[in-house]
Amino acid sequence: MSFDIIRSGRAVFHVTDLEKSKQFYDALGFIETEATEKEVYLRGLEEHNHHSLLLKQRETPALEVISYKVRSEGDLDKLAAKLQREGNELIWLQKGAQKAVGRAFRYQDISGLPIEFYAEMEAVERKLQHYHLYKGAKVQRIDHFNCMVSDVEKAHNYYINELGFSCSEYTAGEEDKIWAAWLHRKPSVHDVAFMNAPGPRLHHVGFWLSDPMSLIDGCDVLASLGYGPSIERGPGRHGLSNAFFLYLRDPDGHRIELYNGDYFTGDPDFEPVRWELDDPMRQTFWGHEAPDSWFDEATEVLNVYTEKKVALQEAKLKKRKPTFVI
Amino acid sequence: MSFDIIRSGRAVFHVTDLEKSKQFYDALGFIETEATEKEVYLRGLEEHNHHSLLLKQRETPALEVISYKVRSEGDLDKLAAKLQREGNELIWLQKGAQKAVGRAFRYQDISGLPIEFYAEMEAVERKLQHYHLYKGAKVQRIDHFNCMVSDVEKAHNYYINELGFSCSEYTAGEEDKIWAAWLHRKPSVHDVAFMNAPGPRLHHVGFWLSDPMSLIDGCDVLASLGYGPSIERGPGRHGLSNAFFLYLRDPDGHRIELYNGDYFTGDPDFEPVRWELDDPMRQTFWGHEAPDSWFDEATEVLNVYTEKKVALQEAKLKKRKPTFVI
Amino acid sequence: MSFDIIRSGRAVFHVTDLEKSKQFYDALGFIETEATEKEVYLRGLEEHNHHSLLLKQRETPALEVISYKVRSEGDLDKLAAKLQREGNELIWLQKGAQKAVGRAFRYQDISGLPIEFYAEMEAVERKLQHYHLYKGAKVQRIDHFNCMVSDVEKAHNYYINELGFSCSEYTAGEEDKIWAAWLHRKPSVHDVAFMNAPGPRLHHVGFWLSDPMSLIDGCDVLASLGYGPSIERGPGRHGLSNAFFLYLRDPDGHRIELYNGDYFTGDPDFEPVRWELDDPMRQTFWGHEAPDSWFDEATEVLNVYTEKKVALQEAKLKKRKPTFVI
Amino acid sequence: MSFDIIRSGRAVFHVTDLEKSKQFYDALGFIETEATEKEVYLRGLEEHNHHSLLLKQRETPALEVISYKVRSEGDLDKLAAKLQREGNELIWLQKGAQKAVGRAFRYQDISGLPIEFYAEMEAVERKLQHYHLYKGAKVQRIDHFNCMVSDVEKAHNYYINELGFSCSEYTAGEEDKIWAAWLHRKPSVHDVAFMNAPGPRLHHVGFWLSDPMSLIDGCDVLASLGYGPSIERGPGRHGLSNAFFLYLRDPDGHRIELYNGDYFTGDPDFEPVRWELDDPMRQTFWGHEAPDSWFDEATEVLNVYTEKKVALQEAKLKKRKPTFVI
Repeated sequence: MSFDIIRSGRAVFHVTDLEKSKQFYDALGFIETEATEKEVYLRGLEEHNHHSLLLKQRETPALEVISYKVRSEGDLDKLAAKLQREGNELIWLQKGAQKAVGRAFRYQDISGLPIEFYAEMEAVERKLQHYHLYKGAKVQRIDHFNCMVSDVEKAHNYYINELGFSCSEYTAGEEDKIWAAWLHRKPSVHDVAFMNAPGPRLHHVGFWLSDPMSLIDGCDVLASLGYGPSIERGPGRHGLSNAFFLYLRDPDGHRIELYNGDYFTGDPDFEPVRWELDDPMRQTFWGHEAPDSWFDEATEVLNVYTEKKVALQEAKLKKRKPTFVI
Repeated sequence: MSFDIIRSGRAVFHVTDLEKSKQFYDALGFIETEATEKEVYLRGLEEHNHHSLLLKQRETPALEVISYKVRSEGDLDKLAAKLQREGNELIWLQKGAQKAVGRAFRYQDISGLPIEFYAEMEAVERKLQHYHLYKGAKVQRIDHFNCMVSDVEKAHNYYINELGFSCSEYTAGEEDKIWAAWLHRKPSVHDVAFMNAPGPRLHHVGFWLSDPMSLIDGCDVLASLGYGPSIERGPGRHGLSNAFFLYLRDPDGHRIELYNGDYFTGDPDFEPVRWELDDPMRQTFWGHEAPDSWFDEATEVLNVYTEKKVALQEAKLKKRKPTFVI
Repeated sequence: MSFDIIRSGRAVFHVTDLEKSKQFYDALGFIETEATEKEVYLRGLEEHNHHSLLLKQRETPALEVISYKVRSEGDLDKLAAKLQREGNELIWLQKGAQKAVGRAFRYQDISGLPIEFYAEMEAVERKLQHYHLYKGAKVQRIDHFNCMVSDVEKAHNYYINELGFSCSEYTAGEEDKIWAAWLHRKPSVHDVAFMNAPGPRLHHVGFWLSDPMSLIDGCDVLASLGYGPSIERGPGRHGLSNAFFLYLRDPDGHRIELYNGDYFTGDPDFEPVRWELDDPMRQTFWGHEAPDSWFDEATEVLNVYTEKKVALQEAKLKKRKPTFVI
Repeated sequence: MSFDIIRSGRAVFHVTDLEKSKQFYDALGFIETEATEKEVYLRGLEEHNHHSLLLKQRETPALEVISYKVRSEGDLDKLAAKLQREGNELIWLQKGAQKAVGRAFRYQDISGLPIEFYAEMEAVERKLQHYHLYKGAKVQRIDHFNCMVSDVEKAHNYYINELGFSCSEYTAGEEDKIWAAWLHRKPSVHDVAFMNAPGPRLHHVGFWLSDPMSLIDGCDVLASLGYGPSIERGPGRHGLSNAFFLYLRDPDGHRIELYNGDYFTGDPDFEPVRWELDDPMRQTFWGHEAPDSWFDEATEVLNVYTEKKVALQEAKLKKRKPTFVI
C-alpha cells in the first residue's frame, strides 16, 4: 500500500443527555480533555492525542462516524485518491472544522459504515503516570471498533486487500463462509471486527485496560454508583481473541467493551486463528451465554452525506442460534 | 455457652466416579492429603488439618454430613449433653472409626441437616508457602456451608440462641420474615448460611481464596482443561457478604463456591446487615441474574441414622421470583 | 480468662503538622471520619467503629497510646481489677472524655508501652461497598501493632499467660531464646508483635488490604503524588507471617505497614511456626534486605502518667546483623 | 527504509550447566520447545515461533548473539546489502545451519554487539490458552534487549537513522547528552535500549507478562523453589517506560527482566519522553535504589567472527552516582 493506516482513532457518538453521559464515562475512568455545551471530548489515561471518544448532544442516539488515524497528510491524500478512483464520494473537513482534528475526510464504506480518516490530532498531556487520577476501570486507550455488517466476507476482503489490514482470528461456518473476522493495523488482535448481522451497525467500541483487576474494580465502582444495570455481559474470557471482557451500555445504549488480554500479532508469518461457528469456547472461553440484548441490539449509524440513519440490510449468512454467534 | 464451636470443618460428599471427581478437585487446586480405593481426602493450601473435603465412592451422589470443629474434647461432651437433653439422638464415632478424625458425633439438626461435631483432626504440613504447588484457583481453606432449609427463622434462632452463632447479614421479606441468614462462629461473614427453599439440602460448600485473581485464574485453568460447563455462575460480586464469587458444579453436581472478599465480624457491637428481598444489588452487586439451576438444584442430604436420603419439605415462606431469591 | 480482648483497636499518634499528615493518610486511602483543629480521626473502608487511627497536633512526634477493644464494660472492669491487683496504676478516662470512645483506662505495660483498653466506640457507616470512594491503597482495617521491646520473652509470656493472647509465629535464636513473637486475639497472624531491640518503641501499625494489587496501586498513587520517599521498604513477601507487605513513613516518620496475605489461626491446635534467626527467608521470603532505617528507627512512646517520653532500655538479647533481625 | 525489522526475536546464551539453567527457566514459566544434549530452546506462552531464548552448553557464560526478525527474505537481503555497503563483514548462516531458523546473517554492530537478522523461524503451537500449563511468572513473550554501550548517542543515531527504529523515551544529562535511549520497531516502549556504561555488554533480556500479579506470583514460586537469591531487584515501577519490573539472575548471572506495564508507541506523532539524569523517579518511580550489582554486572558478548569475548571500552560519558544511572 502507498498509504499507512496506523490504528483505530476515535468514535463520535450522538447522545441525548450530555450531562448523564458525561457522568457515566467519568465513572468509568475516562479523562475529560475538554467540554463545550454540546460536546464532550474524552480520552484514556495513556492517550497523548486529544480524544478517542467524542460525545455530541443530539435528538437521537447514533454513531456519527468511526475514525482511523493515518501516518501523514501524504498518506491521507493517497488514500483519498484511491477511494475516489473506486467511485466513493468523499466529504472533506478542513483543519479547524473539527476541534483538535486536522484535515479529515469521511465516506460510507463498503458495508455502509460511516468512516473518517485523519492524520493529525492535537497533542495533550499523557496521564499514564498520574496514578492519583486513576479511577473506575482506569481506561487506558481506544482499542477497536466492532461492527455488524450484512456481508462479512466482502468487508473482510476489502479491508485486507485494499486497505492493508491483517486478519488475526475469524469464525467460519458452513462451506467455510466467514461469519466474523478480527482485523488489525496495529499489531494487536484488532482495530476493527466485522460480525454477520443486519447492518451496518456499530456493536461496540473497545477500550483497553492495563490489567484484569481494573475490570473488576470497574464493575465495583460502577455498581456502587448505581450503574449496575449498565453492565450487560461479563466479566468473562473470550475464546476468540483471548480477551478478558466486560460489556457496558451507556445511558443511550451505546455499547462499550472494556478489554484486557491481547497478544502480539505483528509477525508477517502469524497465521489467522480459525474458530468453528459451533465451538462453544469461541464466544466465551469459560462457557457462559451472552444475554439476547448483546446479539440483538446495536448502535445505528448515520449517512455521512445526509446525516440520516442508514437503513439496515439483512445479514447475508442465515441467522444462527444466538449462543453461537459472536 | 459452655462449649465453643470453632468453625466449619469439613464436608463429606458421596460421588459416583471417584477418579473423575479427584481430577476435578485437583484441577481446582486442592491438595490431596491421602487417597484410598474408595475415598479421597482433600485440603486447601493453608490448612494444617488433614482434610476439609472428603469424597466417598458411592452409588448415588449425596451429602453424608457437614462437620464443625469444636475447641476440645470437653466442649464436645458438653455440646453432646446439651443436644441429648433436647431430645436428639446422637451417633458416636470413636477415635479411629474415621480416618484422621478424633471422637465425633452426628445427628440430624433442627432443619434435618446431617451434622457432625469433632474436636480433633490429624495435623498435616501446611502448604501455604509451597508456592510451586499452587495451581488452578489456589484453594486456601474451607470457609462455609450454605444450606437450603424449609424454615430459615427456626434455624437462625436455634443456631444463634442455642449454638452461639452470630448473624452477620440477613435478608428480610414481607412482615420482616427472615428469608436467608448468614451466621458465623469464626469472625468472618459466615460458617453457615440458611436460605428459604425446599429442604434440607446443601446448596454449596464455600472455599476461601486469598485474592480475586486466583478466581480468574481458576476459570481459565478449568476452561482450558475442558471444565467450562462446570462453571455455573460468576465471577461476580455478591452485595450480601461482599464476596467476589464463582460457583462450580463438580462431576456429580455438588456445588462449590470459590470465595474472596470477606470482612471482619468479630466485634460484639457489629450490627447484622439487613437486605431487602427485593433489592437487586443484594444477590449480585453488579446486577446480573443467576441461572435457574442455581436456585433449583442442590445436593440431597442423608439421614445419619438410616443413611437414606432425607425427604424434602416445602419452604415455609412462599417462593419468589428466582432473581430475587438468594 | 474472665475477660475477652477482641482485637487491636486504634493508635494515637502525635504529629507536628496536622495538615501534612492528613494529606498523607488521605492519599493512602483512609476515610476521614471527623476532624477538629487539633485532631483527625481516620478509619479504613470496612470499619464500622469511629476510627482506628487518631492524629493529634503536638510539638513532637510520639505514640500517645495503642488501644485494644474488649468485649464489654464488664470485661473492661475485670481486666482493670486484674491489672490493679498486679500493682499497675490505671488512668481512667470516663465516657465523653475522649471523642467517640466509651470508658477506657490506660497504663504502662510490662514492656513500658502505653496501652489503653476500651469496650465501646461510636458506630459509623461502613464504606465497604462504597467502591467509588476507594483510592490509594484502599486501606480496609487496622490489623496489628508491632513493638520493639527490650525483653521479648517477658512480653511474650505475659501476653499469653495473663492476657490470653496466642502465638502464631516466632523467631528463636541461640539457646532457644525468643527473639521476636507474633501474638493474636482475633484469629489472624497478629494483633501485636514484639521484636528484640532497644525499647519500648512502636515499630509500626499494620493495616490490612483486601488484595495484593491494592498495595501496588498504593505505591503508584503515593509516587505520583510525590510521596516516593515515604516508601521505606517493599513491596515484598515476609517469610514469617506470609504477609505481602509495604512499609511507609508518614511525614513525622511514624511507620505504617500495608499488609495482605494473612491466614486463619483460630484453631486451638494450631502450632506456632518457629523460624530460626538465621533463616534468610524469614524476614523476606524473596530474599531482599531491608534498609537500615527499618531496623534502627521507630516511634518513641509516651508515659501515660507524665506524658513525657519513656526512656529506652537496651535489648536483652545481643544485637545481630541487621539483615537477620526482624 | 527498504527493509522492515519487525521486532526483537531471540537471544542466544552460553551457559555452563545446561540442566541447572533449564530448571531455572522452567521454574520461571518458560515453555521448552525442544532440547538436545547441548541446547535448550525456550519460548513464552503466546509465542508461535520456535523459540525466543536459546541456551547452549559452553565453558564460559556469554551472549553469543541477539537476533531481530525481519519481514521477509527480501528484506533480509536488502538489509544485508546496506550493511555490506557500509563496510560491515557479514557471516551468513544458511537455512538448516541453525535449528528452526531460516537464512540468517550475523555481524558486529556499531557498538560492538553481536547481532543477527533472520526472517523465518519454524512455527509451533501457541500455548496462550493452555492455561493449565501456566506456572511461575507465566512468561508470555520476548520483549526487548537492554545493552550497555560506550557511546549511546552513536548507537541511538544509527538505529534511528539507518535501521528505522524510533525512540520512545531517553535520559539526557549535562549538555543534553543522551545517557540512555529506548528504541522500538514494534509499537511498544522498546525492542532495544542502550545505556551508557563500559561496553559492549548485554544488561538484560526483557520478557513480557500479561499482568502485574504474574510478577508477584513469579517471586513467590521462585522463592519457594529456593531461587530467592536469583531475585536481584524489584518488584518495582520504572518511571522511565512505566514498567512494573523484576530483575533476575540466571544460574550463570545472565539477567532477565520480567516486565509488565507497557504502552502504545505506534503513532508517528508520539514525542519521545525526556527524563533528566538526576530525576529520582526516572529509574524507580517509587523511589528505591537498585543494588550495585545491577549497575556493575552484565553479560559479556562474543565476537561473531572469532567467537572470542569482545573487549570492553570505557563509557564515553563520565560515570555518575549509581543511583542515578539507568
